[in-house]
Amino acid sequence: MDTWNEAAAAARPAEGPLAGLRILELGHFVAAPFATRLLADLGADVVKIEPPGGDPVRQWGEQANGRSPWWSMHARNKRCIALDLKHPGARPVVLRLASGADALVENFRPGQLDKLGLSEAALREVRPGLVISRISGFGQDGPYRDRASFGVIGEAMGGLRYLTNHPPEETDLPPSRVGISIGDSIAGLYAAFGVMAALWQRDRSGGTPGPFTLDVALTEAMLSMMEGTLPEYGVFGTIREPQGSRIKTAAPTNAYPTRDGKWLLIAANSDPLFRRLARVIGRPELADDPDFSANPGRLRNVATLDAIIADWSRGFDAAEADRVLTEADIPSTLCFNAADIAADPQYLARGMVRELDDPQIGRVLHAGIVPHVPEAPGSIRWTGPAIGAHTDEILGEAGFAEAEIRSLREEGVVR
Amino acid sequence: MDTWNEAAAAARPAEGPLAGLRILELGHFVAAPFATRLLADLGADVVKIEPPGGDPVRQWGEQANGRSPWWSMHARNKRCIALDLKHPGARPVVLRLASGADALVENFRPGQLDKLGLSEAALREVRPGLVISRISGFGQDGPYRDRASFGVIGEAMGGLRYLTNHPPEETDLPPSRVGISIGDSIAGLYAAFGVMAALWQRDRSGGTPGPFTLDVALTEAMLSMMEGTLPEYGVFGTIREPQGSRIKTAAPTNAYPTRDGKWLLIAANSDPLFRRLARVIGRPELADDPDFSANPGRLRNVATLDAIIADWSRGFDAAEADRVLTEADIPSTLCFNAADIAADPQYLARGMVRELDDPQIGRVLHAGIVPHVPEAPGSIRWTGPAIGAHTDEILGEAGFAEAEIRSLREEGVVR
Repeated sequence: MDTWNEAAAAARPAEGPLAGLRILELGHFVAAPFATRLLADLGADVVKIEPPGGDPVRQWGEQANGRSPWWSMHARNKRCIALDLKHPGARPVVLRLASGADALVENFRPGQLDKLGLSEAALREVRPGLVISRISGFGQDGPYRDRASFGVIGEAMGGLRYLTNHPPEETDLPPSRVGISIGDSIAGLYAAFGVMAALWQRDRSGGTPGPFTLDVALTEAMLSMMEGTLPEYGVFGTIREPQGSRIKTAAPTNAYPTRDGKWLLIAANSDPLFRRLARVIGRPELADDPDFSANPGRLRNVATLDAIIADWSRGFDAAEADRVLTEADIPSTLCFNAADIAADPQYLARGMVRELDDPQIGRVLHAGIVPHVPEAPGSIRWTGPAIGAHTDEILGEAGFAEAEIRSLREEGVVR
Repeated sequence: MDTWNEAAAAARPAEGPLAGLRILELGHFVAAPFATRLLADLGADVVKIEPPGGDPVRQWGEQANGRSPWWSMHARNKRCIALDLKHPGARPVVLRLASGADALVENFRPGQLDKLGLSEAALREVRPGLVISRISGFGQDGPYRDRASFGVIGEAMGGLRYLTNHPPEETDLPPSRVGISIGDSIAGLYAAFGVMAALWQRDRSGGTPGPFTLDVALTEAMLSMMEGTLPEYGVFGTIREPQGSRIKTAAPTNAYPTRDGKWLLIAANSDPLFRRLARVIGRPELADDPDFSANPGRLRNVATLDAIIADWSRGFDAAEADRVLTEADIPSTLCFNAADIAADPQYLARGMVRELDDPQIGRVLHAGIVPHVPEAPGSIRWTGPAIGAHTDEILGEAGFAEAEIRSLREEGVVR
């Protein structure tokens, strides 16, 4: 057991709008643990149940001392208990923990928890009104319920992957990933939102006690964000097609190459913005040229226009071009990588890049707490704990005697 | 005033976990209206204040009878009042509406509402404990507070755009957009989550009455989802680089071309999955070949491996290949476009693609309600209303007499 963790927790009691909320996580990988990170960041007491071998994310990405920096952020502010759910002795432990929880968040394959004796009915027998948030690839019912899934599948079926590409006349490369498991994280965000919606109704004065279940599918979380894609198809039969780095309806907005080999985003897609841009790039006459003065002309001649802007941008380093554009109040930015993020004055001023000491990996940077609540900003009370760091503490709080805990450990139920 | 809307509302009273919640929206474009769509979908009574000319999204995308199908979905289940915020008579109207609201969601430029006399203090004078959710490009303070922003800027500064690209050795095209304003929608989702977190604390028995403000920045909402990008940079100094359509740590997972010119996603990146895939593509020996049998070998030889799989996939239409892979329990899917989504049996079975009648544009498809709440699934009570559709109704409920409403209209305060 990591005493640093206890010390850190004792030193920094929960604050934030979710102080007083108790969440039980039966999650792994990205989606459910991301949902509970958001809840823990706002002050909830999150108890994460994981197998004795640990959540696989503990081994994801680069490792320092056998420990993943990603884990440091993914599991921050949570308490971890290691429990072998396949052991017959685990069920009563989970039920005891559930009996004190406001909500449970899980992302097992549909039906798995039922097989372990942890059906919704069983959980609500010990805790009536327990909010249960389930995240899965395709949802808890329907013909695909039992199909294998991954984040990339959800993103592709939700419609995102199809659109994340250059038009076929510009490339024969496949559509790109966005570089992160965005479908998992968006599903997790919907799950966290749903948990709070259900709890508001359950706990407000005069509210409906529920029970409420949140059935979040990765595919559906993605689809929900697809704007006019589906309505426009329904009315006109038109299929939204990939637009690459441009926007179909307005120009110029694109990423332009710079002298130092970076990509500079410029969004000057209104008449006043374009007039300013034309001046900045030394081509003021374009703002009065009928081919470019208004948006329809700029869209018609977008390839020519982008080439003109790229001719200009290639003459500057990205930082210099960005400074010139910002001074002219034209929306622009370098496409930020990790180093750009870490050095950005706005992120630093807002506490959105934070330097922390992780007892096992040392100095580490985390993203800050979103959404920012000025009246109760919360804190990163500790970084991702070791396996079983809070097993004894959690079991003790749940009323297990020391001898019982010892025997659970000897039997291999907990670690 | 559209009587259909009143009739629809009367016929379908709110249900869902947010029944009884009253939200005031001072939003436009994507982020704030997306947040309130999610709240309205779960049953909240959302009153949207928009200028007499209407929210610009009413004109975005393709139009039918001067009406945007996107709007039909974006503003569904909301009530709309048209109010000229620049008119001196508007302030008391907003304050009257705020006095009956639980939360306000807005995405004006920071400082704009203060200039209109609608500061947080003024709003909370009429409604103590009002939850205020503010969405902006960079946040309500810090050195970039007043900089112009767009969704694409937030995505680029959050780190998403940099990663949404093929490696430089494969293309010199710029990083791609994902085809939707995903930064706006993710910020909206964080705002909706934050509103419910704040309201839970305010309204629960024994909770803290607040006030709570949610200060959501597009950039920060994106950064919050970037997984190990920042922690890994902090510990090792390594910068996550674009990986195109592959995943850096596992193979094979990619989008492969098919005979009918589509992209088929296959994620067979574990040893058992790869063994099955090798059999399906008629190359069972690969599963025992030291170059491919385990993940490190497959990663080393990923270009060769992807070429072998593509040779197979090019021999089939996408639907056929997908069927064969699914039968072998290998995660795969066509990259869905709008038509694929609309026809998908799982979406249809789960009510996630719904056909509705919009009184002005006719038959339209909407994405369903996410998260799905089986015990209180809610409904799409009506599609996006016309400008000012509920002006009289809302003012009447707020205690304005008919003569007052008439005079507000004559003075051009409301429409």
